[in-house]
Amino acid sequence: MNFCPNCGAKVNYQIPEGDDRPRHVCPACGEIHYQNPKLVVGVIPEWQGRILLCRRAIAPREGLWTLPAGYLENGETAADGARRETWEEARARVDDLVPYALFDLTFVNQLYLIFRGTMLSEDCRPGDESLAVGFFTEAEIPWEAIAFKVIEETLRRYFRDTSGPGFSFQTGRIHPPVRKE
Amino acid sequence: MNFCPNCGAKVNYQIPEGDDRPRHVCPACGEIHYQNPKLVVGVIPEWQGRILLCRRAIAPREGLWTLPAGYLENGETAADGARRETWEEARARVDDLVPYALFDLTFVNQLYLIFRGTMLSEDCRPGDESLAVGFFTEAEIPWEAIAFKVIEETLRRYFRDTSGPGFSFQTGRIHPPVRKE
Repeated sequence: MNFCPNCGAKVNYQIPEGDDRPRHVCPACGEIHYQNPKLVVGVIPEWQGRILLCRRAIAPREGLWTLPAGYLENGETAADGARRETWEEARARVDDLVPYALFDLTFVNQLYLIFRGTMLSEDCRPGDESLAVGFFTEAEIPWEAIAFKVIEETLRRYFRDTSGPGFSFQTGRIHPPVRKE
Repeated sequence: MNFCPNCGAKVNYQIPEGDDRPRHVCPACGEIHYQNPKLVVGVIPEWQGRILLCRRAIAPREGLWTLPAGYLENGETAADGARRETWEEARARVDDLVPYALFDLTFVNQLYLIFRGTMLSEDCRPGDESLAVGFFTEAEIPWEAIAFKVIEETLRRYFRDTSGPGFSFQTGRIHPPVRKE
């Protein structure tokens, strides 16, 4: 942030009085501009023993597979956001959403909240941001072509729970990917 | 938002190409400025059959009681943020945080994520934003003087669970308070 969104003056980056960390502060109108993590909401869409994945049509990780997920928008509940993303990316309808996993990704100031959800029918087709959509059992998952570490971790835990004593709410922290030389 | 935080030009409020809702868009540098809900993280601090509450020293709801809670900051995990708020508001240390409840407050573009946590000792004292701190059983809770509906709902469910079959992850939606005439 360079300029005050409120009045247009050039902002300073300084620790406000009574605070303990630097913020963007406007010397003209006095506004303190806080910046906070964003919530990504997603779904594991379940259909008759399989789950739905989407193959990404856009950067980053174009061509790789992921769960329907995206930023929660102002004015919508987390579950509504997750349903919206499932429609946008896979043209699929899910219901009975149950929170399943919460992951911290502090290196990108994001949290992922993933629900389990039941598809209302097998209807689905790629949305604008997807190249393909498809149903997978654990054995069929393209593990080497999953777009994001947080999605792989979600799926690993999900399939561990499906073959175990049942689902319990999962939490964890995802660290930045190590870049291969 | 009136001015572009990036380049300082006056922004337009319009639906970007390929989008479905209006955003603040800069006609000069092209930046789209998304605005997303914020996550409030908090703790139910447990100590020997009681929980810790704080009496607010600041607006809104000065003088009323609440759980330690506040906005998650960039760069911290949800649990770290909840621990920090507990220290700032009650000078208490909590550990073994377990996610307990997630509430949507779409009318203020917030989500509340409340953990259960065990106090490491009974040490506590009011932080800068608190007038008092204290320990309460269910019968001792000042139900008529709880600062926020989301906190009251969290506490009601918590005490229902303590006298029932155990804790399960809670979700819900809080609607705006009805103003009394």
